[in-house]
Amino acid sequence: MSKERILITGANGFTGQHACSHFLNNGYEVIALKRNQQHTDQLSQDQVQSILCDLTDEEAIANVIKETKPDYILHAAGKNDVMESWQNPSMYLKANVMATIHLLEGVRKYKSDTRVLVVGSALEYNPTQRPNHPYGLTKTFQSLISKSWQTLFNLSIIIAKPTNLIGAGPSRGFCSLLAERIVKLEKYNIYEPLQVYHPNQVRDFLDIRDCLKAYEILLKKGDIGEVYPIGTGNFHSLKEVINQYQLLTNVPVPVEIMDQNHKLANKNGHSVYEHGLDLSKIRKLNWNPSIPFSSSLNSILSYYRQKL
Amino acid sequence: MSKERILITGANGFTGQHACSHFLNNGYEVIALKRNQQHTDQLSQDQVQSILCDLTDEEAIANVIKETKPDYILHAAGKNDVMESWQNPSMYLKANVMATIHLLEGVRKYKSDTRVLVVGSALEYNPTQRPNHPYGLTKTFQSLISKSWQTLFNLSIIIAKPTNLIGAGPSRGFCSLLAERIVKLEKYNIYEPLQVYHPNQVRDFLDIRDCLKAYEILLKKGDIGEVYPIGTGNFHSLKEVINQYQLLTNVPVPVEIMDQNHKLANKNGHSVYEHGLDLSKIRKLNWNPSIPFSSSLNSILSYYRQKL
Repeated sequence: MSKERILITGANGFTGQHACSHFLNNGYEVIALKRNQQHTDQLSQDQVQSILCDLTDEEAIANVIKETKPDYILHAAGKNDVMESWQNPSMYLKANVMATIHLLEGVRKYKSDTRVLVVGSALEYNPTQRPNHPYGLTKTFQSLISKSWQTLFNLSIIIAKPTNLIGAGPSRGFCSLLAERIVKLEKYNIYEPLQVYHPNQVRDFLDIRDCLKAYEILLKKGDIGEVYPIGTGNFHSLKEVINQYQLLTNVPVPVEIMDQNHKLANKNGHSVYEHGLDLSKIRKLNWNPSIPFSSSLNSILSYYRQKL
Repeated sequence: MSKERILITGANGFTGQHACSHFLNNGYEVIALKRNQQHTDQLSQDQVQSILCDLTDEEAIANVIKETKPDYILHAAGKNDVMESWQNPSMYLKANVMATIHLLEGVRKYKSDTRVLVVGSALEYNPTQRPNHPYGLTKTFQSLISKSWQTLFNLSIIIAKPTNLIGAGPSRGFCSLLAERIVKLEKYNIYEPLQVYHPNQVRDFLDIRDCLKAYEILLKKGDIGEVYPIGTGNFHSLKEVINQYQLLTNVPVPVEIMDQNHKLANKNGHSVYEHGLDLSKIRKLNWNPSIPFSSSLNSILSYYRQKL
């Protein structure tokens, strides 16, 4: 029996790198779509077929679909830095919205039965209200596009809305930023404290490896057109993250607690679960996270201890 | 006192051409932004400053704002053919969404106090539901973008939602398509009946000249961030349009009434006023349409009698 083929967009990114490993280990033929060669590959060319393709190039991505005809697509490409989205909202629209349209148009034209999982965000806004930042706007548009292409063109699209993903690799999330500062202090005695505006803010941190198990389940068995929030259901404050890291290092965790009224404090995004986080849909598919929070933080520290 | 300056996008289009005349006649300095020289100009170069600029070119439009620093912008550019949007949804996203972002980004960077009127559509969909066609999706996105740029970046944006605009000029609406067929029959004895799928469907037809009076009022006095539906409040069925035209011509109006269950019948768009059409906001600003429906139809016939 021939292997099932999965195309992973954003394969150089945090989610994409883990996704390549995950699906390779689980017996899939993996096609890794990368915008450029910027990040080093974790996986050798022998194991994963890498294709350079900028999703803002509509013809290029259509050709990739035409040539590879994947059974599954995990659309993990995109930009996700809230602060950067304030500086260049138009770039964020292109990277998160137009790129998704180009991908789905390729699917529509050349492999319309491909099951596509689009990675949404807990930072999406309710479109009947006003967005908090351009990033949230672009992710909401991405979801609206995904739902619309499913109904208008009868494509097999499923949307995942993960909470705060953490783990080894090129993440710019709080846990990664802090781990990097810790290791800089540990290894090079460089003290660059991370500024923390909302130490009591709580987040649902989810290990990327647990999340990928959910993504695989959704690609196989998720209901077409459905939106699946994915998280642990447990919330940790940033202060707890700091305390947890303190148990894993001998240096003082380098943080600086800032004035919450600082002008940057509200510009940055944080997950808001206005209507709570309904995990019942993903749990019904027999998914549950299994990696303890401290193990996740430890894997992030290990990543930087090797890398820096 | 120097004249107030208005930049009109889509100046070669149906609304744009009428807008240039309207604002020129009302004493404005008019800058006509055109994607190309495709349509003939109604107004001489002496009266209107024409600039060639494709709104999908972000840098080009930013430079136009930087150089011209308009007091007002009427954003009438865009694509509005529902059937075509099914064929090339990605092009519609670029023309209606990315173009609007590029324009607003230019305003944000170089003339952030410009009052911008964005021309929306009665075919927008409710984003908590599913769209009927790609065109509706793009117009909804355009409105969401406009509202978002207003709140996120504090721009002076107002949104107009006109009903079915009619009048002389390059429109592809029902009244224009039918008038063209009538005049072909009148002048050249060419019988090309227009296929009508929903003869009893009613629409609120608004003369573009009346609409432009509303646009001017909104540019001057409209509330920032507000959405203004604009229409007559009167509805006419397509059958009534046919009968009205019959009074204005000596040839039989060339139509073919089609099976309503035809597969094209539901693909094409028509205005749906789910929650009625709330005209109170625009009426509060002392606007009321004054051109009788038969005069509008007559002006369309006259246009084609001259043109063909």
